[in-house]
Amino acid sequence: MTDEMSRPLMQDRGERGGSRHLEASASEPGAPLIGILGTGDLSRSLARRLVASGYQVVVGSRSPSRSVALFPEEAEVTSQIEAASQADLVFVAVFPEHHSTLVELKPALSGKTLVDVSNSLQINQSGPSNAQQLADLFPESYIVKGFNTISAWTLQMGPRDGSRQVFLCSDSQHAKSLVMHLCRRMGFIPVDMGALSSSLEIENLPLYLLPSWRIPIICTLSLFLFFYLYNFVRDILLPFIKEKKNDFYKMPIETINVTLPCVALVMLALVYVPGLLAAFLQLWWGTKYNRFPNWLDLWLSRRKQLGLCSFLCAALHAVYSLCLPLRKSARYKLLNAAYKQVLDKVENQWDEEQVWRMELYLSVGIMALGMLSLLAVTSLPSVANNLNWREFSFIQSTVGYCALAMATLHTLLFGWDRAFNPTQYQDCLPPTFVLVIILPIMVLLARLALFLPCMARQLRQIRRGWERNRHIRFCLPRSDLHNGLEDVSNV
Amino acid sequence: MTDEMSRPLMQDRGERGGSRHLEASASEPGAPLIGILGTGDLSRSLARRLVASGYQVVVGSRSPSRSVALFPEEAEVTSQIEAASQADLVFVAVFPEHHSTLVELKPALSGKTLVDVSNSLQINQSGPSNAQQLADLFPESYIVKGFNTISAWTLQMGPRDGSRQVFLCSDSQHAKSLVMHLCRRMGFIPVDMGALSSSLEIENLPLYLLPSWRIPIICTLSLFLFFYLYNFVRDILLPFIKEKKNDFYKMPIETINVTLPCVALVMLALVYVPGLLAAFLQLWWGTKYNRFPNWLDLWLSRRKQLGLCSFLCAALHAVYSLCLPLRKSARYKLLNAAYKQVLDKVENQWDEEQVWRMELYLSVGIMALGMLSLLAVTSLPSVANNLNWREFSFIQSTVGYCALAMATLHTLLFGWDRAFNPTQYQDCLPPTFVLVIILPIMVLLARLALFLPCMARQLRQIRRGWERNRHIRFCLPRSDLHNGLEDVSNV
Amino acid sequence: MTDEMSRPLMQDRGERGGSRHLEASASEPGAPLIGILGTGDLSRSLARRLVASGYQVVVGSRSPSRSVALFPEEAEVTSQIEAASQADLVFVAVFPEHHSTLVELKPALSGKTLVDVSNSLQINQSGPSNAQQLADLFPESYIVKGFNTISAWTLQMGPRDGSRQVFLCSDSQHAKSLVMHLCRRMGFIPVDMGALSSSLEIENLPLYLLPSWRIPIICTLSLFLFFYLYNFVRDILLPFIKEKKNDFYKMPIETINVTLPCVALVMLALVYVPGLLAAFLQLWWGTKYNRFPNWLDLWLSRRKQLGLCSFLCAALHAVYSLCLPLRKSARYKLLNAAYKQVLDKVENQWDEEQVWRMELYLSVGIMALGMLSLLAVTSLPSVANNLNWREFSFIQSTVGYCALAMATLHTLLFGWDRAFNPTQYQDCLPPTFVLVIILPIMVLLARLALFLPCMARQLRQIRRGWERNRHIRFCLPRSDLHNGLEDVSNV
Repeated sequence: MTDEMSRPLMQDRGERGGSRHLEASASEPGAPLIGILGTGDLSRSLARRLVASGYQVVVGSRSPSRSVALFPEEAEVTSQIEAASQADLVFVAVFPEHHSTLVELKPALSGKTLVDVSNSLQINQSGPSNAQQLADLFPESYIVKGFNTISAWTLQMGPRDGSRQVFLCSDSQHAKSLVMHLCRRMGFIPVDMGALSSSLEIENLPLYLLPSWRIPIICTLSLFLFFYLYNFVRDILLPFIKEKKNDFYKMPIETINVTLPCVALVMLALVYVPGLLAAFLQLWWGTKYNRFPNWLDLWLSRRKQLGLCSFLCAALHAVYSLCLPLRKSARYKLLNAAYKQVLDKVENQWDEEQVWRMELYLSVGIMALGMLSLLAVTSLPSVANNLNWREFSFIQSTVGYCALAMATLHTLLFGWDRAFNPTQYQDCLPPTFVLVIILPIMVLLARLALFLPCMARQLRQIRRGWERNRHIRFCLPRSDLHNGLEDVSNV
Repeated sequence: MTDEMSRPLMQDRGERGGSRHLEASASEPGAPLIGILGTGDLSRSLARRLVASGYQVVVGSRSPSRSVALFPEEAEVTSQIEAASQADLVFVAVFPEHHSTLVELKPALSGKTLVDVSNSLQINQSGPSNAQQLADLFPESYIVKGFNTISAWTLQMGPRDGSRQVFLCSDSQHAKSLVMHLCRRMGFIPVDMGALSSSLEIENLPLYLLPSWRIPIICTLSLFLFFYLYNFVRDILLPFIKEKKNDFYKMPIETINVTLPCVALVMLALVYVPGLLAAFLQLWWGTKYNRFPNWLDLWLSRRKQLGLCSFLCAALHAVYSLCLPLRKSARYKLLNAAYKQVLDKVENQWDEEQVWRMELYLSVGIMALGMLSLLAVTSLPSVANNLNWREFSFIQSTVGYCALAMATLHTLLFGWDRAFNPTQYQDCLPPTFVLVIILPIMVLLARLALFLPCMARQLRQIRRGWERNRHIRFCLPRSDLHNGLEDVSNV
Repeated sequence: MTDEMSRPLMQDRGERGGSRHLEASASEPGAPLIGILGTGDLSRSLARRLVASGYQVVVGSRSPSRSVALFPEEAEVTSQIEAASQADLVFVAVFPEHHSTLVELKPALSGKTLVDVSNSLQINQSGPSNAQQLADLFPESYIVKGFNTISAWTLQMGPRDGSRQVFLCSDSQHAKSLVMHLCRRMGFIPVDMGALSSSLEIENLPLYLLPSWRIPIICTLSLFLFFYLYNFVRDILLPFIKEKKNDFYKMPIETINVTLPCVALVMLALVYVPGLLAAFLQLWWGTKYNRFPNWLDLWLSRRKQLGLCSFLCAALHAVYSLCLPLRKSARYKLLNAAYKQVLDKVENQWDEEQVWRMELYLSVGIMALGMLSLLAVTSLPSVANNLNWREFSFIQSTVGYCALAMATLHTLLFGWDRAFNPTQYQDCLPPTFVLVIILPIMVLLARLALFLPCMARQLRQIRRGWERNRHIRFCLPRSDLHNGLEDVSNV
């Protein structure tokens, strides 16, 4: 399921056939002749794309006879010195550690534009970037850094969604415009990142590994570890120590199944805390123009990841719960209970309160999961991009708070009256659900507080630009779009 | 999980770093100097995007010294009058209620292009739009309405999918072309909506809240209410009235669990009804060039939403069903049945027919759910866009009808022979499943009717342009692509 | 849920209203006047899109008075000869079988560009394409083939994702550039496919039906058939023949439920086999510049589809497993076991080993399913495109192998010690799980072998361009990105 295997429309049919049947599509007069130094995957894909966009391409290889089979017919494969001489603009598609071997081409490349598409192996914090080193090697050429974030496959098959942006930088404005124009012809969107000093940034881009997920994942794992140990101590270890009760079989499923919902609920509450903190900060300051503290900005930007981690835990909790009747332990317990009921000659066992408790908390739990699924689906990039701001805000905010309320109610119903039963508090360890619902209930109460007319009205004013110390008042319409609407202000 | 938190590639790395390191990228000679009046989120994002696209930007603020920290280094922050004088094209990024405060800038803005990016708070049915009011305030400037549907985040991070389209309108063709060119440089797709009178339409666009979902959601809720009351009366209320049986515990889960599949099946049938009505109408008229009635057009355009509501109900039904053995009520019933079996000294209880009934209808139900999941996944925008017409039609039509057939079979197997058992019809209330399968069976029979050679051939002819009253016959190839293929006609 | 129902932002509001309110947006001077011959869906959508992009449009119809109501106000509807004379560029939007009826327009169309947007009904392997036949009919016009892969809906509403690419070909470079420019103005990405001889290829494009899924689906169905028969013979038929045991009720659910995981596990292993074969081939050859055999290339390109089939089977297996306690057969078995336990007077039935076995293999199975879900979600086009290469490779490769390991462990725990129990091997049929885990274990061992320092280092060298027969050694940094990184080489 790697990138090479995404199925574009053209796979095995159009693109391969297309290059097979592509006849001499004479490029438009005036279009530059593009050279490519290097014969790896990226060179091949670049050649195909350039040819498909109507350019003439010449490829420079150290063994032209060997490489000619790899390239489309329209691209001419020749020696490196030939290619460098003929081309107007040259893609340097070689490993950065081999840039120095191109030094003999310096005269041929003098005055031309070189595009460095190389990637490094590690994140380079300091020290010159590959592009800057290339610029030192070829002082008479104009170096443009770009195309290194596009995979060979995307180049060959055509751009889609988020991989359309190509980040470029160069010291020469003219060279950069040339490459930007080429970029657009190929169907990508060039993003101008400035001078060549930005090349370090650009080279580091494809080396990051899900950076915005680190804090949410660490948070999830920490909460999981904490609650698992708490439940283990409370449900398995203490009974073992005090009553010699062997409940260790509960570790793989039951203990995990009471830990996952704790993590899910706390993470879900954590999604809505920063929004409320931001609102209360703005109310406290009386203005919206002060910058939030960095930690709050960071927290606000991680809400989606926190929410998706919460959804994953909730979904796993559902699956674990549905597995409970499958287990042998559940079967044995049921059979033993039947035996006991026969022994006690109880004909009709029925505890109405316990029955209602379970029916209610299961039903509410399923509703909460359904709402969380809606939130998760609308977080998918393609779905989110098809919603306008009001719709997205309605779902993530309104439906989100409903999901939080449902999940809290699910936990309260699950707890029922155990919170008030003193035997549950032995060893000073309260029942887990009591620990867990503190934060969500605070979040829901804070949100309700923001519905109070005085608070709501002042917040709305602040978000339309009012500042307490400026005493600027405006005539505001009654209804308002929810917090978070992109705002413009006249200051 | 709000829009501010979508993780673009550049978050915290490229974009912030990018603007930090972006050196004086002198814009191309001849490019207009862009001014922005206002200092809110949208202004900041606009400034970042314009700078990244290679433009020179000057921002007009009422407190320049306070605002300069908020903007990238390359954008010059100065007084409003300064910015208005220097800029060639000005984005008016202020709240619409503050447009009048800009009146002092009229001379400086005379003869220039102003882009109104404001949004209203409510849907404006009549009365002048913000853009028109701005045009009245600045009669000597050329007003272009646009960019109001793009959120601040999309502007800053770059366009993706559906949010790439920017709707523009203006009375001045020259001003509109200028802004369209700017739009494309920023990576968006401009859509020309005509003269400034279209600005009301454009301003209302981001204020709609899922308009195409209203009818399907109302339909789902109505069906749910109807079937829930029907099942409640039939399964709980009547037994309570007649036999004093207290089955109210069934309300949260069991009654919901027999209601959801009813809603799902009826909604799924409703997805395929309009297509069949359209086909029969075309057969009746003998031509495809008559317009369908408005209600049929509307119904045809809501099929995806109806199908997704059906899928949601089916998925919830699956989860509720899987929850049934978890409940205390199920446990008590099982234990009581074991007790009874011991009392009756029955060693081996086994009803082969009942066993087979359940195995079959569960298996068929899971298959139906699997096919519905396939339909739901291919409705996702990114997946749907990667399928060509023939593939999409195959899945939604062929697999869809199979899912409907499976779901109907699941219901018939669930009902087994209860439909023929007179005791099920007491109080003149037939079993719910009998009510539910009427529509799906009619739909399936109608679809089979369209397979009859005479009907199929005539429909194919009609869809290739034949008209009964024109007596135009063509030589048609045998096989044909399924109904719904984009058709072109020679009329 | 068909294509007509995708909800673009403009549905029922902008686009319909837009065309209603669009006033005379005089097209830019110098823009060609576009003609459209034909009045079907595609013509209407084309007209709307062209008008929205600022072009003047004239439509040629055989009954102008009848068709005028179908088109936007800005498009002029007139006779075919009028439209052909006025227009500079003409879209021939008629069925290919009616092209010959346009012959009377030859003089009017002489010297103009005609765009053939027709689609055929079947894949045309040989023989002239529609575009070539049109070129024969109109030797004095310049034929461009294009726009036939774009559905009417996409044309009307604007391009999104994968449907943005428009494949064009023509013998005239000038005509092709004209249409490519038009294409870009409409918001699409033109892809130059060469001369008119490519038109056969382009016309076949929208007629393929999921070609890259054929082999994976056939593979899945074959494996399913094989394992179902194996399990049926082993679990139902042989006991029936030998002990007259009637277990046929197991066919709809239990036998399917032991077949699905076999298929899922083998398919998942098949996803990783080609990557390992490729790595070992490169180690054997000592170079990466030899081309892989065709079957290996094909297998490598189907990995995503194989993985998604595996995920579907795994998910269905989970649902079938969760259904097991719902069945009447399970209920009867439980009640009979309770009766037996009462008869045997066993108060506390508990087999610690069996309990632990089930807890463990259920828990590990859920974890494997969770990881597979992650793989499936990141295969969605929009999600995959938002990940860079390193992230995508990490998830598909690292998380993928973990999922395979988890699934193998799940199967081993399920098997427990049955593999060593001779009674399981009667009739020379080993337990199914023994058959199934052979391939996954080989895959995991091979992957571990590639971690050995000598193998890993040599493979890394080869992938950075080293060749055994060239004796070229480079100084390589220690860490390396995982296999599959786009590589560039200096050869």
